[in-house]
Amino acid sequence: MRIDSRKNNEIRELKITNNYLMSAEGSVLIEMGNTKVICTASVEESTAKHLKGTGQGWITAEYGMLPRSTATRKTRDASRGKIDGRSMEIQRLIGRSLRSVVDMKKLGERTIWIDCDVIQADGGTRTASITGAFVAMIEAMKWMKEQGMINEIPVTGFVSAISVGIVEEESMLDLCYQEDSRAQVDMNVVMTDKGEYIEVQGTGEESPFTAADLTELLALAAEGCRQLNQAQKAITGDI
Amino acid sequence: MRIDSRKNNEIRELKITNNYLMSAEGSVLIEMGNTKVICTASVEESTAKHLKGTGQGWITAEYGMLPRSTATRKTRDASRGKIDGRSMEIQRLIGRSLRSVVDMKKLGERTIWIDCDVIQADGGTRTASITGAFVAMIEAMKWMKEQGMINEIPVTGFVSAISVGIVEEESMLDLCYQEDSRAQVDMNVVMTDKGEYIEVQGTGEESPFTAADLTELLALAAEGCRQLNQAQKAITGDI
Amino acid sequence: MRIDSRKNNEIRELKITNNYLMSAEGSVLIEMGNTKVICTASVEESTAKHLKGTGQGWITAEYGMLPRSTATRKTRDASRGKIDGRSMEIQRLIGRSLRSVVDMKKLGERTIWIDCDVIQADGGTRTASITGAFVAMIEAMKWMKEQGMINEIPVTGFVSAISVGIVEEESMLDLCYQEDSRAQVDMNVVMTDKGEYIEVQGTGEESPFTAADLTELLALAAEGCRQLNQAQKAITGDI
Amino acid sequence: MRIDSRKNNEIRELKITNNYLMSAEGSVLIEMGNTKVICTASVEESTAKHLKGTGQGWITAEYGMLPRSTATRKTRDASRGKIDGRSMEIQRLIGRSLRSVVDMKKLGERTIWIDCDVIQADGGTRTASITGAFVAMIEAMKWMKEQGMINEIPVTGFVSAISVGIVEEESMLDLCYQEDSRAQVDMNVVMTDKGEYIEVQGTGEESPFTAADLTELLALAAEGCRQLNQAQKAITGDI
Amino acid sequence: MRIDSRKNNEIRELKITNNYLMSAEGSVLIEMGNTKVICTASVEESTAKHLKGTGQGWITAEYGMLPRSTATRKTRDASRGKIDGRSMEIQRLIGRSLRSVVDMKKLGERTIWIDCDVIQADGGTRTASITGAFVAMIEAMKWMKEQGMINEIPVTGFVSAISVGIVEEESMLDLCYQEDSRAQVDMNVVMTDKGEYIEVQGTGEESPFTAADLTELLALAAEGCRQLNQAQKAITGDI
Amino acid sequence: MRIDSRKNNEIRELKITNNYLMSAEGSVLIEMGNTKVICTASVEESTAKHLKGTGQGWITAEYGMLPRSTATRKTRDASRGKIDGRSMEIQRLIGRSLRSVVDMKKLGERTIWIDCDVIQADGGTRTASITGAFVAMIEAMKWMKEQGMINEIPVTGFVSAISVGIVEEESMLDLCYQEDSRAQVDMNVVMTDKGEYIEVQGTGEESPFTAADLTELLALAAEGCRQLNQAQKAITGDI
Repeated sequence: MRIDSRKNNEIRELKITNNYLMSAEGSVLIEMGNTKVICTASVEESTAKHLKGTGQGWITAEYGMLPRSTATRKTRDASRGKIDGRSMEIQRLIGRSLRSVVDMKKLGERTIWIDCDVIQADGGTRTASITGAFVAMIEAMKWMKEQGMINEIPVTGFVSAISVGIVEEESMLDLCYQEDSRAQVDMNVVMTDKGEYIEVQGTGEESPFTAADLTELLALAAEGCRQLNQAQKAITGDI
Repeated sequence: MRIDSRKNNEIRELKITNNYLMSAEGSVLIEMGNTKVICTASVEESTAKHLKGTGQGWITAEYGMLPRSTATRKTRDASRGKIDGRSMEIQRLIGRSLRSVVDMKKLGERTIWIDCDVIQADGGTRTASITGAFVAMIEAMKWMKEQGMINEIPVTGFVSAISVGIVEEESMLDLCYQEDSRAQVDMNVVMTDKGEYIEVQGTGEESPFTAADLTELLALAAEGCRQLNQAQKAITGDI
Repeated sequence: MRIDSRKNNEIRELKITNNYLMSAEGSVLIEMGNTKVICTASVEESTAKHLKGTGQGWITAEYGMLPRSTATRKTRDASRGKIDGRSMEIQRLIGRSLRSVVDMKKLGERTIWIDCDVIQADGGTRTASITGAFVAMIEAMKWMKEQGMINEIPVTGFVSAISVGIVEEESMLDLCYQEDSRAQVDMNVVMTDKGEYIEVQGTGEESPFTAADLTELLALAAEGCRQLNQAQKAITGDI
Repeated sequence: MRIDSRKNNEIRELKITNNYLMSAEGSVLIEMGNTKVICTASVEESTAKHLKGTGQGWITAEYGMLPRSTATRKTRDASRGKIDGRSMEIQRLIGRSLRSVVDMKKLGERTIWIDCDVIQADGGTRTASITGAFVAMIEAMKWMKEQGMINEIPVTGFVSAISVGIVEEESMLDLCYQEDSRAQVDMNVVMTDKGEYIEVQGTGEESPFTAADLTELLALAAEGCRQLNQAQKAITGDI
Repeated sequence: MRIDSRKNNEIRELKITNNYLMSAEGSVLIEMGNTKVICTASVEESTAKHLKGTGQGWITAEYGMLPRSTATRKTRDASRGKIDGRSMEIQRLIGRSLRSVVDMKKLGERTIWIDCDVIQADGGTRTASITGAFVAMIEAMKWMKEQGMINEIPVTGFVSAISVGIVEEESMLDLCYQEDSRAQVDMNVVMTDKGEYIEVQGTGEESPFTAADLTELLALAAEGCRQLNQAQKAITGDI
Repeated sequence: MRIDSRKNNEIRELKITNNYLMSAEGSVLIEMGNTKVICTASVEESTAKHLKGTGQGWITAEYGMLPRSTATRKTRDASRGKIDGRSMEIQRLIGRSLRSVVDMKKLGERTIWIDCDVIQADGGTRTASITGAFVAMIEAMKWMKEQGMINEIPVTGFVSAISVGIVEEESMLDLCYQEDSRAQVDMNVVMTDKGEYIEVQGTGEESPFTAADLTELLALAAEGCRQLNQAQKAITGDI
């Protein structure tokens, strides 16, 4: 049995609070166990520089952690004067994942800014960010539709993400921090509600892994994402 | 009557949630109306550089706003590569206010890091930060006492803060954003529970103010701080 | 008697040298005792970004200290790659103070850049900066009038500033560095020539202060600002 | 047939020039088709900060592109004042990949700095960097052994990397830039010479991909890495 | 005899490889002994900011060293977040030297970006950069002529550069690193093919030098530059 | 006749005010015509990092311009977050020039920080900085001798610097800004009082120059430096 008594194929308790902040076009608080992330979607009336004049929009993401979201205080990015490499990697992943299901032409020359801010970190912050950010993005798109900016929600599917890994030779779903820090293999999987992959990022820093390991981990991830998709749809409704 | 139906000498609904985060030695969520700030206190086993070898500790504060805490998205400090002037001013104020009641010798060569992160901003974020940070600091000191690091809570009084201002010729307590943005005079007052001043910062950017205005505003502030001190004591108990 | 033989309500010797630099539209060297600050006002033919198209102008200030203006050499801001928090706080204060008496519409879409550079520091550099910068700004406005940019000097009053504080239980006017560094309470007051307040910033970092202390300090400050206003008018003439 | 007349399962012409620079402990120029990367390994007699006193060493990587390695000139990171997100992601990947096969205890408290500088970019620069850097690292380790710093080459296997992707519905090995820029799915795979995975990073930014796609791409990658491993061994010999 | 058996008035073996990179409008690898520099010239369809609307073009240069071009690894500028003082000095020198022979009006409102990246450093990197960059610039101008952007190669002469110095009382031409690091006097000379000076930069950091020393060193430099000019013309042909 | 009625071989009016600031170990205001620079020398009880443990001291310089020292306001380096290339070049030159005559072993493990801050710029600020900084350095060394830190003033000669140039075909000494901005050839010369060269930096950005030009300019510079040396000695006395 796992540290927190879960089974290997079980995700942590999931809670998504919609309309978490009063001003953002979309905003949710997503909680997966002790991991808590505020995800907001802000609509800006101009597209990315490289898309000016093309009629296409853009979706970009930023990710941050509150200094005391972690067990020991983490120096504030703003104080160090730059975003650390890990955060940069994560925010690129979030943006890429969401963009993969959005029709940028239907968005028009607008940018949706996604902000994922980790209030409390207990493993899986990047995947929780993606899952929560997708809901915030949909809510912002609904607002855009109400405003007459767009005629339909321009997405081709739902996006959710989960971590899986191998800990003491066991394949496990949705690692908490204590599991994650001891994992031999660590993988983040981003999937659509059709069961297709958007991103597969597996790392065997402690030791390499086999094709069989990969297959087993992907199966666990598929089950996790399926559950996350259901929770997302319970909030957004059909789109 | 005011925008939100309050009387001129009335503060907004106040709620302080203690132990808001699982890892910090002290952490609260303070809500004053729609303004919501997470305040944490983190204990570090080394003092500030300029105090090394003196036996004295230090208290330092950092302040930030989530990008979408405000009505329109605010560029992340980390992305701009530096803390903006306003934030820097505020974090210096928070640190100074808390240090004024702490006996640094009794703290030993340690630093208490205060982090105030604004989740939602509706005016008065710096004063809410001070009021909340004081509670987080006391909770961290209780933890230090339990750990045997200190023998007593080394503070000489309670610290709370409130904004006051003149809006359309009316002196008002605890301005919300809409009031603050139209204020002719804006003042932040930090006080002890003995009714003494720690900081008085009054600004008449729109128009200068008289000694009589000052007197009236300070009286309002004293009443506000008295109520905040009560709420703080309800949480921390006698110290 | 004070360190430099002054009475508690006495300011230091004041000297304002007008037209200190050959190119600036307005430039003064202000000396208050050993504190010496070069204040310049530069006229730029564009307003602040957030005012483009509104017909309004802007006044913004920057403050710096020469590395050896202080008793021990201070690292150059440019070498550290950023303005320190104290300088940022001060330059915001200078800008705010001057803006409070200027009619931005009459200025037109222009910016007046104020630069205050401390050549020698002996306490009260921020208040000397404000007092000197006001004169430099008026001189620049006279130049604008000569150029036909404006029809009148668009200010509603004179602005001067002074520090007051409590040192060894004594309330004192215009603290020099040695007094300032031992002060229990330190206050900077910015006033108009009508005796109204523009800014009141009182700090009791060493110990809190009472309403009676505040009253006494403000009375001292009023007397100091009155004298500074006279010296300013002796240079600018009626405006 | 592909742009450059290769078959789908064919890698580009590979050339690894050993001892490319005169000073580095290990240095190679790796060429995969038109992609050219200088990879160096530099031995430093101190370990990473977080490992001081543990007896363990560290391997860290930096990655850069010459401004005109690309079709249009890319602004120099040093001029922008920071490493861009993509480069940061890549250098983290290179370091992680090499560390996965090195026994840090046998390395002693030393750091091997890996530098991968792209002279000419035509797709697959990150994977070429890993393949080349592995050789440079081994050469540096041989030098360490000669110096008596270590008794054996402390690696558990060979590391090579290759890109695969789906372009116009075809799965292809070792994408050149023109293929990469049109790819629907893009995957980088880092493998050991035992056929195990160190990293699998698959991205379907243009469109999601299925489990069958994944399987096909991984098979192509395995074949590519096998050939790269042979080329590496031809240079390093048995270790 | 010198370290590498050269005579005092002898330059190192010189090799200029043209069209070194596939994308740049002009690119060479210049080797002077062990010093190797990649010089590229990139044509951009906009001029420098301060020349907009004047019909004139601009030539600007950037200089960098690969981290392991030197005997001990040099921290990457991008990691330090800024270009070091020496590099900045060098890139200003390169730009200035090339601009001195170019007719900016004939260039039209375009910028030629020169990038000099040192692959291996053994003294004289800045002078090799200038000599190589001149060739790359001419090649880019030929490309511009082919494209119909310009009607003729708008230069008034050839530019080459060499270092000279006094080492152990001996005047020497083209110092290698070991000589350079022991030189009492170090001079860099940039000349035209007409034997005129573009830049003379002589430094006697170790000890001052006389007019006679200067004369002797300049004579050596003239001989060196003459040879470099021949090599340049062998590549570019008449222009 | 020149703009300001000087003869071609005439320097501008020179004034060096000693002990310009109250705290610095050495400080002068040097005025050459309208160019005014504050030069200070600050003694620090530690040497440069690379000299720790060698018994040798170091001399390092920083150079800055007040924003309104120039005809149009110059953005403050601190606001841009970095020192500009020209300033960096100049401060390297100042440090190198002074170090060339100082015996670092006799200085002991100390640093003399030189700060040159331009109050008003009218050409020749870098050369005036060197000439003034030399005097400030000597004054600081006298202070060190009085403190018993050193037994003698550890310099081998006096250092002064002047600009020369060719303007409208005329060779001129000590260019003012208007001359400098039109100069075809611009040269800065740093000399000892024995008439030897420390630095010769000649630039023909507008057009190349001949050996005859160089000879003529160096003769002018020698005459200028001779006069500057006399003025320096009048202040410092024999050393």
